[in-house]
Amino acid sequence: MPISLGELATRFGCELIGDPDNVVDSVAALQNATSRSLTFLSSAAFVTQLPATRAAAVILRSHDAADCPVAAFICDDPYAMYARMAAVVCPEDAVEAGVHASAVISPSAEIATSAQLAANVVIGERSSIGENVFVGPGTVVGDDCVIGDDCRFVANVTIVRNVTIGTRCIFHSGAVIGADGFGNAMTPDGWVKVPQLGGVRIGSDVEIGSNTTVDRGAIGDTVIEDGVRIDNLCMIAHNVRIGEHTAMAAMTGIAGSAIIGKRCMFAGKAGTVGHIKVCDDVVVAAKTFLSKDVNEPGTYVASFPADTARSWAKQLARFRRLGNLIDRVKKLEE
Amino acid sequence: MPISLGELATRFGCELIGDPDNVVDSVAALQNATSRSLTFLSSAAFVTQLPATRAAAVILRSHDAADCPVAAFICDDPYAMYARMAAVVCPEDAVEAGVHASAVISPSAEIATSAQLAANVVIGERSSIGENVFVGPGTVVGDDCVIGDDCRFVANVTIVRNVTIGTRCIFHSGAVIGADGFGNAMTPDGWVKVPQLGGVRIGSDVEIGSNTTVDRGAIGDTVIEDGVRIDNLCMIAHNVRIGEHTAMAAMTGIAGSAIIGKRCMFAGKAGTVGHIKVCDDVVVAAKTFLSKDVNEPGTYVASFPADTARSWAKQLARFRRLGNLIDRVKKLEE
Amino acid sequence: MPISLGELATRFGCELIGDPDNVVDSVAALQNATSRSLTFLSSAAFVTQLPATRAAAVILRSHDAADCPVAAFICDDPYAMYARMAAVVCPEDAVEAGVHASAVISPSAEIATSAQLAANVVIGERSSIGENVFVGPGTVVGDDCVIGDDCRFVANVTIVRNVTIGTRCIFHSGAVIGADGFGNAMTPDGWVKVPQLGGVRIGSDVEIGSNTTVDRGAIGDTVIEDGVRIDNLCMIAHNVRIGEHTAMAAMTGIAGSAIIGKRCMFAGKAGTVGHIKVCDDVVVAAKTFLSKDVNEPGTYVASFPADTARSWAKQLARFRRLGNLIDRVKKLEE
Repeated sequence: MPISLGELATRFGCELIGDPDNVVDSVAALQNATSRSLTFLSSAAFVTQLPATRAAAVILRSHDAADCPVAAFICDDPYAMYARMAAVVCPEDAVEAGVHASAVISPSAEIATSAQLAANVVIGERSSIGENVFVGPGTVVGDDCVIGDDCRFVANVTIVRNVTIGTRCIFHSGAVIGADGFGNAMTPDGWVKVPQLGGVRIGSDVEIGSNTTVDRGAIGDTVIEDGVRIDNLCMIAHNVRIGEHTAMAAMTGIAGSAIIGKRCMFAGKAGTVGHIKVCDDVVVAAKTFLSKDVNEPGTYVASFPADTARSWAKQLARFRRLGNLIDRVKKLEE
Repeated sequence: MPISLGELATRFGCELIGDPDNVVDSVAALQNATSRSLTFLSSAAFVTQLPATRAAAVILRSHDAADCPVAAFICDDPYAMYARMAAVVCPEDAVEAGVHASAVISPSAEIATSAQLAANVVIGERSSIGENVFVGPGTVVGDDCVIGDDCRFVANVTIVRNVTIGTRCIFHSGAVIGADGFGNAMTPDGWVKVPQLGGVRIGSDVEIGSNTTVDRGAIGDTVIEDGVRIDNLCMIAHNVRIGEHTAMAAMTGIAGSAIIGKRCMFAGKAGTVGHIKVCDDVVVAAKTFLSKDVNEPGTYVASFPADTARSWAKQLARFRRLGNLIDRVKKLEE
Repeated sequence: MPISLGELATRFGCELIGDPDNVVDSVAALQNATSRSLTFLSSAAFVTQLPATRAAAVILRSHDAADCPVAAFICDDPYAMYARMAAVVCPEDAVEAGVHASAVISPSAEIATSAQLAANVVIGERSSIGENVFVGPGTVVGDDCVIGDDCRFVANVTIVRNVTIGTRCIFHSGAVIGADGFGNAMTPDGWVKVPQLGGVRIGSDVEIGSNTTVDRGAIGDTVIEDGVRIDNLCMIAHNVRIGEHTAMAAMTGIAGSAIIGKRCMFAGKAGTVGHIKVCDDVVVAAKTFLSKDVNEPGTYVASFPADTARSWAKQLARFRRLGNLIDRVKKLEE
């Protein structure tokens, strides 16, 4: 959407150095930007690209302004400012109110008139869809779900049942919310399924990645609080609670009944065992698995950097002989 | 479904202390139970909550009965008994025989009259759907599949082709069964796809989690025996065999042609390399990867507990200097 | 498809020892092969099964020919030759040109007349589908996508938007290509979504496994070059580039902006952090995570073999006392 630099500056309360009447209609990286594009400089790694940029305007910090050959938006956090301005310059498709002829809606469901239900959408019994919700093609919303206003389900999402969702949430394709948790009781005759009867409660401003699964609680609910961001292929097991503004990168797995604090960050392939408590502001490194309660904010790690096969084989051999080494040191001490 | 305590006691051969005419119609945790709910006490961790419970009845072991302020079901395994009773108190939705108008069924497919095919279901050529099967919305069953009685496909499940399934199996949303295995032959011109021509054979009483994938065999079949339970986002590669009553928690991956025994348990993110044999009754800890045959039942582990970033960095440095340490000890010994 | 040995020999320029008029119509393992089946001997592990095979013909290396009791195809790489011959003996289902009545196609989409669109397919605005493409049931192709000739989307695939795909690619069920990358800027008010505005460009002869996700770029594109093979449940994050003929086994995760070379191989559950460069011809072992640039071809590892719980507990204790051990050695040295 074409918009003038002046309008962006006003809307976001951002200082502008340059002609307010110049117009941008796209975003680009510093290096590829053209005379109609907005770009940003956030990381020092790209500072050398600044003097040569041909962008219409660059969002940057004040100390970089002198090197900027074009218009500059000055702010403390160029990446966040870029996120906000880019959403205006390149907005999401507008929701087109209406229900596609192929959608199948239970008579007891309630669909807001401003909602858009795309092809092959299925809405279950007693479920409600809020205002301006976009339900993409192939998406199934099962029984007894409440979908708040302005949510977006991209395509082929499955909201199984008993799921309550706040406002402005985004669910990417293949996400499955509200499926049975993994509850099984061992008996002499094999496993007996433990009925999974709870639901899932999701706050507002939550984003759930492609093919991520969030299971319903066994008795109570699985809870995802406001502002949580979960990447692709993550697993949130039954009865987990994830605190506000926590973010989880792809392939993170949280086992059953774990309670995760606010503003935590899980890097890729991280996770926790079940039934533990993780306090607020914990960062878990990639591939790291928490196996007990964490009561102190901070960064936690348990991963080994990769080595060449030959060097790692030697190192493994050394590791395995640790007991022998300890014995030898003991002997020397004696 | 409202049911009297007496009826539950009779049906499950369970001793009841309390009024058999009291009725329950829901389940709840000890702490939240109300006068119409059934609950259970299985873990010692919750024993302090027993005296204050307001449940209609608690399923518990005999040694806890004295502290129970309400009716008690006495049994040896309260969790398994709860699983069974809860399935009666809160039963699955009944299957409503019939085929939705939007379902697309190949002329050569056979659908039992008691089966329910929901909206947008697709059934391929020469496939058969057994009695009382529920095929949820958006589910695709491809060609040449046999689905036994009483199976349930929640929604958006994909059964690709050549898949044979026993009775009473449950497939959660996004599960993909029978896709091509990962077979590629390297040549000077790049990879050549090795046709995947086998099928998948699944026994009875198997449950497969959301977004889990079970690939078809390359030539023979991939086999999942009776009573196996697989959680979400697991990967069962081509030609794997999984023995009866084995359970796999989320994100477990079993590589091609591995043979897994009976009653094994894989914790979250566990796995095996391909072409190995794992005997019966093996437990694999979270994040642990079996890289060779396991011939002895027992628990296997290869994971490190997370540490603070600072402490882990020190520990990594120590680990890397192991060779140096060994040299120094050798020198001291000389 | 029944075909004579002579015809196979001619088509693939392969030496045949045996009656060229014999016909095969199936493939099988050495042990289970019958008089109409083609089989192969590639791994020494199966050489003992050769003398007893009842196959019509065996594809093998010249030094195994003497032990072959039936017809033999002689070649240097029996596995690759098997892959090619099997694709002729057991071909993919032919594409049946036409659009199913239930498919929903945007007026601005262009569908080649030889393409097959199955039940419940949805094609978005300005997207084009090439010749002989098979779009399986439940598949959604969003807006602004270009699908090259001879591609195959098995079922329930989601191509979100802005995705360009070459020729002869295969996408398995549940794969999600072109969803938003995981871009979030932290602010005092919580996370702000960074609009994901790039696309995905996929070359030719690429195969993507079930439930694998490939995210669109943040500004530029995510790129998968020709001949890449990606197994199930993998994650390719935004702005990643994967070089020609690289293969990734199941559950591999490549974090944002990583650049992966050509002919690399990632074993199961492997991965990389973001923003690194991996050169050509790198092999990453199972469960191994690259955390920095790799500039030398070779094999990289960082995983520990599983041990019994008891033995591992001891070993962990030794590992944790490494600092103590180092101190003791230092003392001895003094």
